[in-house]
Amino acid sequence: MSEKTGPLSERARVRREPRHADYERETLNAIIDAAYVCHLAFTDQRGTHCIPTACWREGDYLYIHGSNGSRLIKAAALGAQVCLTITHIDGLVLARSAFNHSMNYRAAVIYGVCEEVEGEHKLTSLDALVEKIAVGRSKEARRANAKERAATTVLRVALDEFSCKIRTGGPNDDDEDLDLPVWAGVLPLELVPAAAVPADERVEMPAYVARWGRQG
Amino acid sequence: MSEKTGPLSERARVRREPRHADYERETLNAIIDAAYVCHLAFTDQRGTHCIPTACWREGDYLYIHGSNGSRLIKAAALGAQVCLTITHIDGLVLARSAFNHSMNYRAAVIYGVCEEVEGEHKLTSLDALVEKIAVGRSKEARRANAKERAATTVLRVALDEFSCKIRTGGPNDDDEDLDLPVWAGVLPLELVPAAAVPADERVEMPAYVARWGRQG
Repeated sequence: MSEKTGPLSERARVRREPRHADYERETLNAIIDAAYVCHLAFTDQRGTHCIPTACWREGDYLYIHGSNGSRLIKAAALGAQVCLTITHIDGLVLARSAFNHSMNYRAAVIYGVCEEVEGEHKLTSLDALVEKIAVGRSKEARRANAKERAATTVLRVALDEFSCKIRTGGPNDDDEDLDLPVWAGVLPLELVPAAAVPADERVEMPAYVARWGRQG
Repeated sequence: MSEKTGPLSERARVRREPRHADYERETLNAIIDAAYVCHLAFTDQRGTHCIPTACWREGDYLYIHGSNGSRLIKAAALGAQVCLTITHIDGLVLARSAFNHSMNYRAAVIYGVCEEVEGEHKLTSLDALVEKIAVGRSKEARRANAKERAATTVLRVALDEFSCKIRTGGPNDDDEDLDLPVWAGVLPLELVPAAAVPADERVEMPAYVARWGRQG
């Protein structure tokens, strides 16, 4: 909702319901940090594609990774313009009129071109992905060996050209609909952790695993 | 996991981890019917975009709608090739090695060109969107009037060229990692309903609203 800053580009400007637009870096960071996955759109000789992929943030960059051979990684590594979008659904908004039904959500749309992350930074950025699951996990899990590192490409895109759009709160009905005998309100939705499922009993649950199902 | 049918096109063929690929219509339908939102990728003169939008299914078509003026709707209505992707995240998969960390998910990628839905079918398809929230809701909420209908475009894409990809189950560690002292297993995630928030107390909660928070 902030009007302190605006979009960097015309294509990153929110047109529909601009009152929900937000171009603040803090808003963007919060949306990214709450996400495990983004949808990455790119265009190659076969058309325009939209592929889900894990994402994480370090500073002012969004990171993705994948097998060297994947189409997404190949196109993005070769400098295709990409659009990375993250959407959190927070609820269904039920209005008295069908037309004013809506959703509550937090979404971020990021435009850019990827650059490859290499050398020591590639290793530490893969650690950061594991740390996103739980602080300390990257010190427990076996780190990628040379073969695994060589098979993986890490890419990042600068968080410069973006927009966020957030809707919260109840329905916005037209005044003449307010007395209709129709229930109106919000049906919230939340992505919540359920109890962890161990692969076996050989290793005791770390605290972050034992806690998982209770965070909901 | 089925190998009964294959992809319609080369671009719809799953390349990475093809053992998780599924080209069955029933699988696709289940993924769509569980989703409130898809991510739609398209390309126009400003580049490739990826925008979240509500989606629903009738028979062998995926439907979307929006304001006539939206970029997404304009590009899609003009016949741009689109890629519509739905992703449900079911959990984080923690392996003994960083490299074998993964996620459980159900994803569908649909390629096509939209066609506009008009006349009586436009009205009934908007009813179907409201019915997705709860059976019966379209008979309660005020139906779109002529002005609202005129401001809205409904589009659909045939469910012909698609792939689904599903991962379930625990981590797949390399044999030599199985004895490492690292916890391995799944941290499940679920999109669950929380208790409904009424806009006011004027109308009693219908059963589908009262039930909402208890479905989790």
